[in-house]
Amino acid sequence: MLARARATTDDARITYVQSAIEDISFAAGQFDVVIRSLALHYVGCFETVCQRVHHCLAAGAVFVFSVEHPIFTALAAQQWCLSPDGQRQHWPVDNYFQEGARNTQWLTDNVIKYHRTTATYVNALTGAGFSIRRLLEPEPLPEQLASHPDWKDEARRPMFLLILAAKR
Amino acid sequence: MLARARATTDDARITYVQSAIEDISFAAGQFDVVIRSLALHYVGCFETVCQRVHHCLAAGAVFVFSVEHPIFTALAAQQWCLSPDGQRQHWPVDNYFQEGARNTQWLTDNVIKYHRTTATYVNALTGAGFSIRRLLEPEPLPEQLASHPDWKDEARRPMFLLILAAKR
Repeated sequence: MLARARATTDDARITYVQSAIEDISFAAGQFDVVIRSLALHYVGCFETVCQRVHHCLAAGAVFVFSVEHPIFTALAAQQWCLSPDGQRQHWPVDNYFQEGARNTQWLTDNVIKYHRTTATYVNALTGAGFSIRRLLEPEPLPEQLASHPDWKDEARRPMFLLILAAKR
Repeated sequence: MLARARATTDDARITYVQSAIEDISFAAGQFDVVIRSLALHYVGCFETVCQRVHHCLAAGAVFVFSVEHPIFTALAAQQWCLSPDGQRQHWPVDNYFQEGARNTQWLTDNVIKYHRTTATYVNALTGAGFSIRRLLEPEPLPEQLASHPDWKDEARRPMFLLILAAKR
């Protein structure tokens, strides 16, 4: 995690902290923004993260993060349903309400990801004192598909969920 | 649509209005709550609904509604993927980012539903001036599954999306 202290004219520096995300401990209202990219689906307790991030944000400051989409994490296999001749038929969803660990492959075997529902992401944030400002499910842009036609299947189902939440 | 005027000691009455949801026209701040159950996935322009509902709600008043879940409306067929022997294998998702009309069956043929993403529901609300208070993806309760074991597949994928939004 990268922790950037609120800049002042006298004190503008960057401090690197090696820590589990759930264990962060900063002063109340210390930060103007917390950003986490594709990390929180490896964290078991999202409610703890929301509470700790809320604590260290200034009033009105924002928490913005991306995770693998719940539709993507529901099944551990994270694979398209293929026809007998190998064509991608559709994205399979199952076990959506069974939140918790999924033993997956990501660059190597036995990578533990944690599946939770979209509702759990949103309600953990609002319950911790955040307002949801924006929720995004990105898809490839037309110009990206023009230059990367092999990305076309990314427009068939959401792979990522991004949320911008502000401290109430 | 059921329109209930804000109750006063002198004037507490119920008025029924037959109208397309997109065409409602009420006084600013007239209502304390707007409730819509499983209607808005039949409406083409959700942004218009959000703007008109926001207009007629009092400050801090709430808009609560349920729709068929985007995972449920993405494919017009709205059917499980079956094994050759008829077992429900998983719920298929495709065309998620192709928002718009779906020609479906619901009690009869040629029922037009409108698919939109979860992001579109949330951002139309926040863009119109609402705060998201709660987002639910209901699943059967354990006691319901005990008395209705045939509902077990409803716990495998979300069928409904409920949102409680408050006027900022």
